[in-house]
Amino acid sequence: MPDPSHRISIVDDLREMLGESAVLTGSDVSGRQASWLSNDPMQALAIVRPESTAEVSAVLSACHATGQTVVPLGGNTNLVHGTETRPNDIMLSLERMNAIEETDADGATMIVQAGVPLQRAQDEAERQGMQFALDFGARGSATIGGAISTNAGGNAVIRYGMMREQVLGLEVVTADGTVLSSMNRMLKNNAGYDLKQLFVGTEGTLGIVTRAVLRLRAAMPSQNTALLAVDGYDNVIRILRHLDASLGGTLSAFEVLWKDFYDLVVAEREVHAAPLSAGHEFYILVEARGGDQSADAARFEAVLEDLFTNGWVGDATFAQSGAQRNALWAIRDDIDGLVDALKPAMAFDVSLPIPAADDYQRAVHTGLRAEFGDAYRGSTFGHLGDSNIHFMLTIGSTEHDAQHRAMEIVYEALKPHRGSVSAEHGIGLEKRDYLDVSRHPEEIALMRTLKTALDPRGILNPGKVFE
Amino acid sequence: MPDPSHRISIVDDLREMLGESAVLTGSDVSGRQASWLSNDPMQALAIVRPESTAEVSAVLSACHATGQTVVPLGGNTNLVHGTETRPNDIMLSLERMNAIEETDADGATMIVQAGVPLQRAQDEAERQGMQFALDFGARGSATIGGAISTNAGGNAVIRYGMMREQVLGLEVVTADGTVLSSMNRMLKNNAGYDLKQLFVGTEGTLGIVTRAVLRLRAAMPSQNTALLAVDGYDNVIRILRHLDASLGGTLSAFEVLWKDFYDLVVAEREVHAAPLSAGHEFYILVEARGGDQSADAARFEAVLEDLFTNGWVGDATFAQSGAQRNALWAIRDDIDGLVDALKPAMAFDVSLPIPAADDYQRAVHTGLRAEFGDAYRGSTFGHLGDSNIHFMLTIGSTEHDAQHRAMEIVYEALKPHRGSVSAEHGIGLEKRDYLDVSRHPEEIALMRTLKTALDPRGILNPGKVFE
Repeated sequence: MPDPSHRISIVDDLREMLGESAVLTGSDVSGRQASWLSNDPMQALAIVRPESTAEVSAVLSACHATGQTVVPLGGNTNLVHGTETRPNDIMLSLERMNAIEETDADGATMIVQAGVPLQRAQDEAERQGMQFALDFGARGSATIGGAISTNAGGNAVIRYGMMREQVLGLEVVTADGTVLSSMNRMLKNNAGYDLKQLFVGTEGTLGIVTRAVLRLRAAMPSQNTALLAVDGYDNVIRILRHLDASLGGTLSAFEVLWKDFYDLVVAEREVHAAPLSAGHEFYILVEARGGDQSADAARFEAVLEDLFTNGWVGDATFAQSGAQRNALWAIRDDIDGLVDALKPAMAFDVSLPIPAADDYQRAVHTGLRAEFGDAYRGSTFGHLGDSNIHFMLTIGSTEHDAQHRAMEIVYEALKPHRGSVSAEHGIGLEKRDYLDVSRHPEEIALMRTLKTALDPRGILNPGKVFE
Repeated sequence: MPDPSHRISIVDDLREMLGESAVLTGSDVSGRQASWLSNDPMQALAIVRPESTAEVSAVLSACHATGQTVVPLGGNTNLVHGTETRPNDIMLSLERMNAIEETDADGATMIVQAGVPLQRAQDEAERQGMQFALDFGARGSATIGGAISTNAGGNAVIRYGMMREQVLGLEVVTADGTVLSSMNRMLKNNAGYDLKQLFVGTEGTLGIVTRAVLRLRAAMPSQNTALLAVDGYDNVIRILRHLDASLGGTLSAFEVLWKDFYDLVVAEREVHAAPLSAGHEFYILVEARGGDQSADAARFEAVLEDLFTNGWVGDATFAQSGAQRNALWAIRDDIDGLVDALKPAMAFDVSLPIPAADDYQRAVHTGLRAEFGDAYRGSTFGHLGDSNIHFMLTIGSTEHDAQHRAMEIVYEALKPHRGSVSAEHGIGLEKRDYLDVSRHPEEIALMRTLKTALDPRGILNPGKVFE
């Protein structure tokens, strides 16, 4: 632990190196919100805002020399307390490194600084006739650097993969200030170890991402969307496999809403016009995106027809307009409605093999009901095509032990399926105590070996992922 | 360096641990071919053939304890001397760990032991109505473990990515015999560091892959194939971008044959009936795969029509039968024809940003012509959609210095484009001296840091990738 005089001197040193406006202290720190999850004031020795990779390197060199801890910050939308700070941490914000440096539509690449918000990268790709395929709700604030360090997922994973698959190259500053430039622009590059993998999804514990080469994809102008009502989980899987094959690679979303979700958001809430009657076990929001609206629509309708012919769906509605499509997605995305109905709400993000998802959901439901009785109410939904389900639920209490018990029930039920306590949000501080549900001791030991090798003084995002 | 008595004792120890039939010595070693590239006899203290992960662990524990070096072996099809042994190495062959343990079509996963040949995994996936999407020429011999450790590429990368993208989970034995089970089965899993990435593409220098969870994809029964004749590299890129967008995600191959290739294999060789007249600058083999043959064929023809309308192609032929398709692919795959015509042949596998590929090709051609005059003749082809091109060429000499000079010309010309000396074959021993063409000193230093952290005694595949 640095002594108080060190704390004053490191802030002074950083001011001298980077200039006054780069180093915020006092009310410029506490005036910010601690995180998207908390209205508490941010706490930190200082918020340091470098403008270049060289400045990030200088900051880390200075912090490494004195053992000063550093927490990297992107758009502050993390959901697992992954950028939480203590009063003696330096918060290293990439907010002033927000340039899109180059877009190469012919090469299908874009070079950005880490602080570029996701939506700005998407918009720029679109302007160039391409798309950047990662997408999720916090797109306006979340940054590319944050999405890389958390290996973000979201809406298009079934088609394009997670953030890891969208990153061709990285520039990273490691704990001692070394600048590691691995700005590969090719789909194929097997010249030695693929070092960028070390920094994708490691939550800023092994290095600070400063720039990236992103992979762009062809724009997919056609969009066909339907909501299916289905009974029997076997049919859900049959439909997934049939669409995946018959749509020839254009399947872009396969979002499953369990009955408990549909009842709550549509049947009871009376905000959304019901696109299909309640009472079915599952509602599946399906979307396909391709290159030719009329041909793709004909294919999509024919494939939906197959589902009826095979007796796999009970009912279905095919969006005939943009407004109808938006209305279907608004049901899927009505998280505010869930939070409203399930106060105080708890949210979960888990993954497990697709065939096991419904059994798992039942086990959790039964376990929570047994523990909390009628105080429990839940809703189940998620990117099932990616093996990812979310729960939003209430147990009628914010009491620590009760919430802890609820988390245990949700996570313990993953064990027989070798599921994951975090599908896409990461571990941060929130899930650290449950990491061993999903990972073996040998795996955690190897994570520590890497941490020690790359950050021997433990200055980078301390305490996140594991102690 | 272990002393001679150690060498006898380690082989005896391994025999005792694993049984007689698991440990080959003498003519059972020298009777095998050193590699696919060399008819020399294999050399090694012994070939050790464990039957289980526990046996691999026991072997590595024993070797780690005494500093005995170990070279892992899959199907022996490596192209960069990546599994070359010295007389005092133990060759660890996974040939008896060749079980397909489980195929789950609903979950789209397959669990295999590392020694399963690629083609057997493909066939099993097909039997289950799915596909395993990695494919390349050596499919009959190359193993899943080898494909993982080299991050193999091949024919379907433009659609499905490299081997890295086909691997969901791994079981690995690290240098000291620790069994690391990371057998994730989900598309999404952000519970801590994604450790499997350490072992994909690191050529057996950080651990021995013993089992894997593979990702299966929907089978794509439709297949539409064409050969296009194109003048002007700008048109090649326009065609790539147009097909990628208009075919809606079904584009599965975009193989470019430069004029020097087409002249040699088609115009001069007189083995293949010429599908298109010679004299164009580029010939592009295009294939799309989807779910519905008649609808997909109509789309494919319409998109080809666009290319003519836009004036981007000079000529084209659309395969009307399986035989015609095979004839087009036979041209692309006629490596034997190239080797025959270009004796003694040298082969290269590089990558660089797609827009730069033709300038690069010209620079190499000019450089080799200036150096070697008429003794040089080359052919250029490759997976251009993946930024990967291959050269097969002759300089009329097998003399070391001349070949070294040719390699320098090919690799040095990559530098202005930040290209890679290895797109898909890896580094092994062959390209070790050129690693620094594509990677910065800080990157190579970090590779060494990882090697030291995971294999402190340096027993795993010593000398491969870097010294």
